[in-house]
Amino acid sequence: MWALNAFVLVAVLQLLGATAGTLEAYPSNHLETSSGASCEFAQLAGAVDADGLRTQIDELATFSDTPAPSVTRILYTENDISARTYIKDSMKSAGLTVREDAIGNIFGRWQGTEETSVVGTGSHVDAIPYAGKYDGVVGVLGAIEAIRALRKVGFTPRRSLEVIMFTSEEPTRFGFGCLGSRAMAGSRNIYEILEGAMDKDNISFTEAARTAGYLKEGEDLKSVAVTNETYSGFVELHIEQGPTLENEGIAIGIITAIAAPASLKVDFKGDGGHAGAVLMPFRNDAGLAAAELAVAVEQHVLASGSIDTVGTTGVMQIHPGAVNSIPREAHLEIDVRDIDEDRRDMVVEKIHQSAKDISNRRNVELQSFDVVNQDPPAQSGATIVEAATSASDELGFKSKHMISRAYHDSLFMSRITPTGMIFIPCHKGYSHRPDEYSSMEDIVRGVQVLALTLAKLSHKS
Amino acid sequence: MWALNAFVLVAVLQLLGATAGTLEAYPSNHLETSSGASCEFAQLAGAVDADGLRTQIDELATFSDTPAPSVTRILYTENDISARTYIKDSMKSAGLTVREDAIGNIFGRWQGTEETSVVGTGSHVDAIPYAGKYDGVVGVLGAIEAIRALRKVGFTPRRSLEVIMFTSEEPTRFGFGCLGSRAMAGSRNIYEILEGAMDKDNISFTEAARTAGYLKEGEDLKSVAVTNETYSGFVELHIEQGPTLENEGIAIGIITAIAAPASLKVDFKGDGGHAGAVLMPFRNDAGLAAAELAVAVEQHVLASGSIDTVGTTGVMQIHPGAVNSIPREAHLEIDVRDIDEDRRDMVVEKIHQSAKDISNRRNVELQSFDVVNQDPPAQSGATIVEAATSASDELGFKSKHMISRAYHDSLFMSRITPTGMIFIPCHKGYSHRPDEYSSMEDIVRGVQVLALTLAKLSHKS
Repeated sequence: MWALNAFVLVAVLQLLGATAGTLEAYPSNHLETSSGASCEFAQLAGAVDADGLRTQIDELATFSDTPAPSVTRILYTENDISARTYIKDSMKSAGLTVREDAIGNIFGRWQGTEETSVVGTGSHVDAIPYAGKYDGVVGVLGAIEAIRALRKVGFTPRRSLEVIMFTSEEPTRFGFGCLGSRAMAGSRNIYEILEGAMDKDNISFTEAARTAGYLKEGEDLKSVAVTNETYSGFVELHIEQGPTLENEGIAIGIITAIAAPASLKVDFKGDGGHAGAVLMPFRNDAGLAAAELAVAVEQHVLASGSIDTVGTTGVMQIHPGAVNSIPREAHLEIDVRDIDEDRRDMVVEKIHQSAKDISNRRNVELQSFDVVNQDPPAQSGATIVEAATSASDELGFKSKHMISRAYHDSLFMSRITPTGMIFIPCHKGYSHRPDEYSSMEDIVRGVQVLALTLAKLSHKS
Repeated sequence: MWALNAFVLVAVLQLLGATAGTLEAYPSNHLETSSGASCEFAQLAGAVDADGLRTQIDELATFSDTPAPSVTRILYTENDISARTYIKDSMKSAGLTVREDAIGNIFGRWQGTEETSVVGTGSHVDAIPYAGKYDGVVGVLGAIEAIRALRKVGFTPRRSLEVIMFTSEEPTRFGFGCLGSRAMAGSRNIYEILEGAMDKDNISFTEAARTAGYLKEGEDLKSVAVTNETYSGFVELHIEQGPTLENEGIAIGIITAIAAPASLKVDFKGDGGHAGAVLMPFRNDAGLAAAELAVAVEQHVLASGSIDTVGTTGVMQIHPGAVNSIPREAHLEIDVRDIDEDRRDMVVEKIHQSAKDISNRRNVELQSFDVVNQDPPAQSGATIVEAATSASDELGFKSKHMISRAYHDSLFMSRITPTGMIFIPCHKGYSHRPDEYSSMEDIVRGVQVLALTLAKLSHKS
């Protein structure tokens, strides 16, 4: 374990050289132990600025289209742009060299002593309508804070460390998620999709990106792609978005696999008509077709027989949407995910069959059934899982290996570099809602594990 | 039949005095007959200005929140106010004395020779989202044109004739229909409901009315109510909004009863959460509760066993409405109607029971189940049905007695005066959609029957 020794050396030297002031910041109970690891723990525990991080999380949450405590931050809107400026300023104040790519991914680099592949970390700060302030944000502001902590303890990176804020991990605006990380990974179809993508107000992706100062004249989305040699590894800190860690009283989750979603868009069209005048036998109600399909989605998911299969009809819009008008058009957006790709795709096929059956039985036209994306699940990189696990152990935190049922930018980073994730507990597993919450104690533990993991990976040959 | 004779006299005199120019306008085939009735027919046929009426229908359709051919005209919006100005100008140009009440009902009166109860006619011009240009409009512009035609043939009203444009027959903005006619009829609950009513943007009814120049400081909604002595009868011209007349090749439908709706508002609330992270057993999806209830509405309606029972879930909104977010809240608006009040109310009760069952089974909170309105169906007044039937016969049009499955302002006018309706065919029964259509030939026939019916009622002692 040369890398670790190197770091222990750094840390011990730093401890010896620490000022009284710095020492006072250390929780005394951590100073009782005396191994190298505990030194790092003491160092990092004192080095992570919980109050500063809390302040930044709260300040970032104020850039929202909906009132607090909810957070709504949609790709390339005014609040998204303000949040980006906030992140770039925070990166600079942490001494990072900031750059952006054509799609708006933001990179803050701490140059290492060696010109070799880089260790990446980061997440996103966009938020779906009426979401909370921790999803994604903890992995961006937390990563910047981890860099600050490593500086404080006098760490010197061998491989450069790079904090990444990914563009639009959420699919809200263009119905397609992880735009930034997909583009970095050189996803074959993402470029074509984005060129044709329109939001609900018929604003094209290109137009929206330009208004935010990206994808300038002459710039090409393909320029966002990075080579497989760019990163030696990537690690993302994130709230669990599920109840397991909290229920089991475990501080840290180390992700070994990420479930992947299939996203579907379905449109039904009927004749509509007046709710009083058209008798039941003469109707073809697009809204009822949609309602039946939503119920069928749940049935097919439950029939998979695996707890790991989940399916959600998150969008159900009917048109014209008046109490005395028979729904003429219905639009559904469905999310199906699993850690087993075949099992997930079988559910998608059953949903398609149900849509066709409902369309025939109700004489409602199935205008479209689009599989928007159907990504394969990912396995974490062994080196990342090892580094995060030992970091957690050395810091004295109880951790467990688990899978991520939510997908993240890590799913796509894993296509170009060994990738892993560090989860922290969140209250009752609530996420994507205003009362999403993780305690600062849990967040600080996550930042410490992230910092030590980054240190290990930076020194790993 | 003193009243008719008096009118025949008027008409015959007018025919003798008709100019060549006027005569040329008469379809010659109508001049071959020679009874008093045929004279009236000849007179009215020539007197109704089809081109002028078509132009007015097209001009009014341009006041819309959505592009042609669709028409969207919501209560007290800019386009609604423009349409009101257009109607008042049209009334004035027809020589009517115009006034408005506190809720914005518009009255155009042709003063009769006797100070006695008045004969009313009219309909509405508001339109639900993405509707057509004939629903309601034909009954307002058609009534004004009927007045013009009666003037042309030299008719002199004994009872005053009054054209009414009712405020907000559609429930779009405040979830409650026939505001103007309910208020005129002195509906017990309408005043309280409107005082508390808010639209989806949290604008109160009172605030909205004020911006449109109604319900001024010190004005009271109760002032809109009229006494049972005000009108001697009311008749409304309307497109069928069903396919019967067209299918059977019948020009005129005489309405003997109006089905009445019960309107329901239902809200479900669950915990929401991330579409990937929350496993199926731990969900309480408000969107699926809504979908199941919409399907149950259809089942209960079909189970009533009567073709006259109809039920529609016209509004189904889920929140937050993102593809990767479990629906946390769902709002439904349901319309159930029948000509049999008890049968309709039994269906409403079954829907309520289903809502409770779904709520319990899914552990989703049934936040509200409001019966917004539950009006009794209405029988037409015999005098009105008689007058319209004989008018149709005398004009040589095939007519049939039928019921109105859609409800109209007539439902509420029937509470204060004998009321009836005259239906004309509309293409395939399409209504509340952009391709709603009635031919000018059918509209002109309806206007002729309305004119002669008004003449008869005006002279009826």
